[in-house]
Formats: sequence, C-alpha cells, structure tokens
Amino acid sequence: MTLFVNPDRLRADFDALAAIGAVNANTDAPGVHRPSLSPAHLAARQWFLARAAAAGLETAVDAAGNHSAIWRARRFAAPIRTLLLGSHLDSVPNGGRFDGALGVLAALEALRTVQEAGVALPVDLEAIDFTDEEGTLVGELGSNALAGSLTPAMLAQPRGGRAALEAGLARAGLSEAALFTARRDPATLAGYLELHIEQGPRLTQSAIAIGVVTAIVGITSYRLTYTGRANHAGTTPMDARQDAGLGAATFTLTAREMVVRDFPGCAVNVGQMRFEPGAFNIIPGLAELALEFRASDAQRLSELEDTLLSLAGLVARQSGLQLALEPLGGCVPAPMSARAQAAITAAADSLALTHIELVSGAGHDAQVLAPLTPSGMIFVPSRAGLSHSPDEFTAWDDCVNGANVLLRAALKLAETAA
Amino acid sequence: MTLFVNPDRLRADFDALAAIGAVNANTDAPGVHRPSLSPAHLAARQWFLARAAAAGLETAVDAAGNHSAIWRARRFAAPIRTLLLGSHLDSVPNGGRFDGALGVLAALEALRTVQEAGVALPVDLEAIDFTDEEGTLVGELGSNALAGSLTPAMLAQPRGGRAALEAGLARAGLSEAALFTARRDPATLAGYLELHIEQGPRLTQSAIAIGVVTAIVGITSYRLTYTGRANHAGTTPMDARQDAGLGAATFTLTAREMVVRDFPGCAVNVGQMRFEPGAFNIIPGLAELALEFRASDAQRLSELEDTLLSLAGLVARQSGLQLALEPLGGCVPAPMSARAQAAITAAADSLALTHIELVSGAGHDAQVLAPLTPSGMIFVPSRAGLSHSPDEFTAWDDCVNGANVLLRAALKLAETAA
Repeated sequence: MTLFVNPDRLRADFDALAAIGAVNANTDAPGVHRPSLSPAHLAARQWFLARAAAAGLETAVDAAGNHSAIWRARRFAAPIRTLLLGSHLDSVPNGGRFDGALGVLAALEALRTVQEAGVALPVDLEAIDFTDEEGTLVGELGSNALAGSLTPAMLAQPRGGRAALEAGLARAGLSEAALFTARRDPATLAGYLELHIEQGPRLTQSAIAIGVVTAIVGITSYRLTYTGRANHAGTTPMDARQDAGLGAATFTLTAREMVVRDFPGCAVNVGQMRFEPGAFNIIPGLAELALEFRASDAQRLSELEDTLLSLAGLVARQSGLQLALEPLGGCVPAPMSARAQAAITAAADSLALTHIELVSGAGHDAQVLAPLTPSGMIFVPSRAGLSHSPDEFTAWDDCVNGANVLLRAALKLAETAA
Repeated sequence: MTLFVNPDRLRADFDALAAIGAVNANTDAPGVHRPSLSPAHLAARQWFLARAAAAGLETAVDAAGNHSAIWRARRFAAPIRTLLLGSHLDSVPNGGRFDGALGVLAALEALRTVQEAGVALPVDLEAIDFTDEEGTLVGELGSNALAGSLTPAMLAQPRGGRAALEAGLARAGLSEAALFTARRDPATLAGYLELHIEQGPRLTQSAIAIGVVTAIVGITSYRLTYTGRANHAGTTPMDARQDAGLGAATFTLTAREMVVRDFPGCAVNVGQMRFEPGAFNIIPGLAELALEFRASDAQRLSELEDTLLSLAGLVARQSGLQLALEPLGGCVPAPMSARAQAAITAAADSLALTHIELVSGAGHDAQVLAPLTPSGMIFVPSRAGLSHSPDEFTAWDDCVNGANVLLRAALKLAETAA
C-alpha cells in the first residue's frame, strides 16, 4: 500500500498551532514566542494532546513533561517496541513557526495516516513532543530525561538560570526530582525519526527537496582570555605595547582562515569579545573571547580542538601576551543510524524526491537519542538558510514532502525493526 | 645669579602631600587616590595653600576652584603680567604620587626660591593647581574655565556624570554658574610652564634627563559599528556568513599595521569591542568598537583620520558588512610656544642636563592654555613608562632636575616676557 499524509489536515494543524504564541501575526514574517514551559508553550502542548485525542489516538505525558500521541500496533503476543517520531513545540524567544513544530505535526499526521489506512505494523508508533529542546531552560531536557542522560549537574546550573527552571517546572506541574524517572529502557524502543527544517542554506541553494542527515555535529566551547598590559593609549609607543585586543583579533581572523582551509565542513565562531578596562584611551590589558567550534565526527572534532588551541597559544607567544583557556564542555558528534538513513533514502526515492546527505550543524533531540536507539533525521529546505527568527520559512510543498518521507521512512524502519 | 631649588624642602613637601589620600602606603608601590573634588583632593589643596602661606606667599582660589600661590614682583608702575607655573593635585582613582603633584610642588618651590633669592623679575609668578585635570568629573575643568574655553555643553554631559559633578562642586563650595567667571584676560598672562612626568618610556629608555615638549597631541575618537547578519553558528556554512566580528577584528589589526608603517609617531587604539547578540553559538550580527587616534599636528591628525575611515569602509566592503561611524570629537593638537621651548632648552643646558624634544601623547592643562599664552612643558623620566597606577615612579634626582629646569626656564621666560 502506498501511503501519503493528508496535506490539508496537516496544513490546518500547522496554522492552528502557529496561532498559539503568535508574534507579528499580520506581517510577512509571522513568528511564534513559545519559550519552554511558558504559558504559550503549555497551551501548544495541550492543543497537541487534544488533536491526538480527537483522532482517537492514546495520549500520554511523562515525568519530564514530554507529550505523546500513541498509535498501538494491536499485537498482543510478545512485548511491542515503540518507534518514536517527534520533535518539539517550544521555540526560541521570538522564533519561527517551523522549527520543531513541523516535526511534531508531521509525526502526528503520520500516526493518523497509518491509523486510517489500517496498516499492520510490528511496532507501536509514538508522536512525541520533547520538553525544552531549544534550551530556554536546560536544553534537550526532555530527550535527556527519556534517554537517562539527564544529570543533577545539568539542573544545578541550567543555561537559563535556576529561577527560570523552577518557575517553568512549577508552571507545568513537574517535579524536579521526578524528571529522572522519565527514563525509558532502550529495549522498549525501535528507533527515533525526526523531520526538521535544515536551518542552513544547502538544500535551498542546490534546489534539493530532502536532506538525509548523516550525523549531528559535536560542539566544543572555550572561553579564551589574553592578558597583556593596560596602558596609556597616548604615551605608550606603538611598538612598546602589550595589547591584548590585538591577540584576540589575530586569533579570530586566523582561526577562521585555518578552519576554512584545513577543516572543510567544520565551523568555528567567535561569538563575543570583551576588552578590559574597556576605555577609548587605554590599551586593552585583557581580552576575553567566546569560542565555539563544530565537527561531525569525534576524531575531527578532537583535531580541530588541538589545532585551535595551538593557534591560540602561538598568537599569545608571538604577541607577548598570556593566554588562559577555560573549557566549557559541549557535546560529542552523533552519527545517525545507517538503517535510519537507508529508510529515509528509500522513502525519498519512493516519492521521486531529490535528496542529498547532510551533516546537521545544529543540535537536536536526535543526538541525545542516537546512542540509545537507531535514530535518523530528515531535513527540508529553509529559505535563505534562516531559523530562530520570524523570517524562518519553508515552502508548504517542502513541508508536505518532508511529512511523506517521515511517514514512509517510519514504515520502512518499522518493518526492519520488528 | 645661579639659582637652585631646595631639594630637601621639595622632598619634605612631596612626602607630606603623598600621604594625603595615600593607598598601598606601606608597600613598594605607594599611590594616591585623590579623584577631583573628593575629600582627599580638597584636603591636598588646603595643605597646598597652607604651605604657600607658611612661605609668606599670597594665596588665592578662583571661581573654578583653581588654587594658587602668588609671588608678587613688587613693581608698582604699569600693570604686571603673571607667569603661571603649575599642574594639578587631583589623581586618577588609585593613581600615582607623581602625576600632577610634582608639577605643583616644583612650582611652589620655584616661587619660594625666587622669593628667598630676592630676584627682581618683570612679572608676577603664580604656582597654580588646576581643578579636575584628570577628568574624573569633566576633564581640564579648571584650565578651561581660566582660559574661557569652558562651555555649558561640557558641563551638561560630563564624562563622570552629572551627579558626580554636582556633588563635587557642592563639596568644594563652588557654584556651577560661577565657573565661567574664572576666565582671565590673556593680556594679564605672561605664559605657562608645567613640569610633569613623561608617562611614557622614551626618556627612561634613552637615559635622557629632560624632555622638551614640542606639542601635545590632538585626539580624535569614533565609535565604529559593523553590521552583518546574526545567524546560527552551526548551520551557516563558513563561506555564507556575514560575520560583523571579522570586520571589527580585521580593522583592528590593519589599523595598527597601517599606523606603524605610514604614521610614525602617531598612535591608534581600539580600546573596546562588543558583539551582538553576543552568544557562543550565534554569528555576530553587529560589532561595535571604540577607536581613538592621536597625532601631534593638525594636518597629520586629519590625514590619519581620513586614512583610518577609508580603511574602515574598505574592510566593510570587502567583508560584505555595513559600517556606521559615530564621531565623538576630541581635541586639536597644541604646539608648544617656541619661546617656552627655548627657555626650557637653555635651562637644561645651564644645568648640563641631557634633553630631547618630545611630543606629549597625553593631554595636559598646557594644551588648553597654549592658544592663550606662550606655554611649555618639561618632562622627566617615568620608570617603565608607567602612570595612572601606584607603580608610577620617577627617581628623586630626576624630580629635582625637573624642578631646577622649571625654575630656570621660568626666569628665562620672565625676562623675555617683560
């Protein structure tokens, strides 16, 4: 049987969801403001459960606030495993309508399509909306809780601050201690598939419909501090300065050149820079910069780290500055499952959709689930590569293509997962 | 008659003054904290008047709080002009013992020496302590008031803030409106001489005793803002970025290289840099930098300005960024009087002291007085070129040499000013 999602029903859901927490609603760039566990986010989750129930699906909310719609395979012999399809309904502050929302709605639509078609599958299907993917509070909180990788340390110093986390949990009726009980036994899972907008320009630039994600990049961050000597900017000759700002500027430029030349496909960013004492008329005695870099496999990430730190030290020596390195951690690269990739590729082929392999430069819940269960991601084009903005946009045909690929990849993975 | 200052009396005054507002008093780096019109600064000024009175000199405080000791020439025919000798008793927060203080004490000592010697001079001598040279409140407030170059605009948005200015004036018993009445008719002035520490390394590096200042640099400041596009630091390929931070870093490095190569003797400083939105994982969409540059003559300062602004624009075009320039003003270069320079040189020669011509890279009250009356400055070596710090230090012999040069240059200038 050749299944397709119902594009009109999916569109109606998409528009209804986009109205919850809407910003700039009547402009060319309508967006949504649904930070994790905010009233608008909680309203969106309630709406999702109501839509699932209206379709006759089971609903569930776990101890980490992950919201699910469940289609039961109705086989009574032997334990049935669950194939998760999902994404997230939270947004960054003043974000777009597509990031996360498309994946949850396509998952729901896939379940409805399977249910209507009366397909027999060897696994249950669960459309899941993970808590706090965007990290307004902790970042990938729900998927980490489900995967059992949530730690007390992640909750002790959350990126959004303790107060915001406590307020959000209270608003959602969640208990911090109980978050850890949301863990699921990997033996009960058949895999995880997520449809998401690319958030980069590669699909749109090459006019390709579907991205088959091969890996989600690993990310490492450091705070670098160059120290020289603050001094009078008028009386200190140019050749007698220890200008920490020059070290920071040199590193920033050279790091970029080096990554472009020697690490194709990797990324480096200096996202912030700050000088002390920071006056027009004082040579910077200290320059602090925020460094982050990404690579799609662990070996490459480690090489990139070695190279950038060596460069930072070289710049310090050449400039007569001291260098302090503060490692801020990050996450390891997550290769996607070969079986999941094959299922996505076959699904795209069955729909005669063009596709390429892509690395995800952004983090996703799939990277948390990948060590646990065969995981895969499907990307659809982002106009101009934009996301995290009301300007985020994906053509509706691309959304429907993505939902059909998700549906068929799920069927394919379900068959091989039995 | 060949006059010398009394080095022991000068030293006793120096030590007594250094105890007022002392910081780190019992360490190797004793400093002073006498921000303008702070209680410690006011105490230092009272002490100065008392020392002058004890020497039998007249004392005066004008409407701008400038404190003076006056030696009268005692000629009763025709109006007598006044040769000003001075500096300032305020310090930067946690500054050094020499900056400003040495010049005021040497001026007082010069008057005492002249008085004791019973020299006949055709001018009055006035040792003057100018209000707020360092700019904790306004910057060169007292000299501007005396010169008639103080404007209401300078008081409306003072660099230290209105509250600090109002509190300081109240503490000193000064009226804001009356500050403008401190103006003196240039016809009543015979010149201005100031002894000061160099605050740079040139004298100490070349082991020269005396710097004859030829000019005080002009300073121009701009706020530069590069605007690109804030974007996801993971999903945006390296070659598809509009990274405002790279523009700011490129400008910072290239500006320095250009000034070193093409503008010898000039200075450029990027004292602060700030990126927006300023996150590890977001490509900077905006980079703002604090630019200041200095040159010792107006033509050169203008050429430097043209070159730096052209460079800033070129970097923007090459990096695909927008550039906004906010001019923040500054001050024009102040050439020192040829007669004052000749008097200082002759004085140093008469004492067999080595001397070189120097440009002052820092601002001084002499730059405010230079357009008004023949002005000159004498520099003595600063250890390691340091100032504005408790580590500021000048060997005592160098201080005495400077005081003797001030004394003899004053006598020389007085003769030719009659």
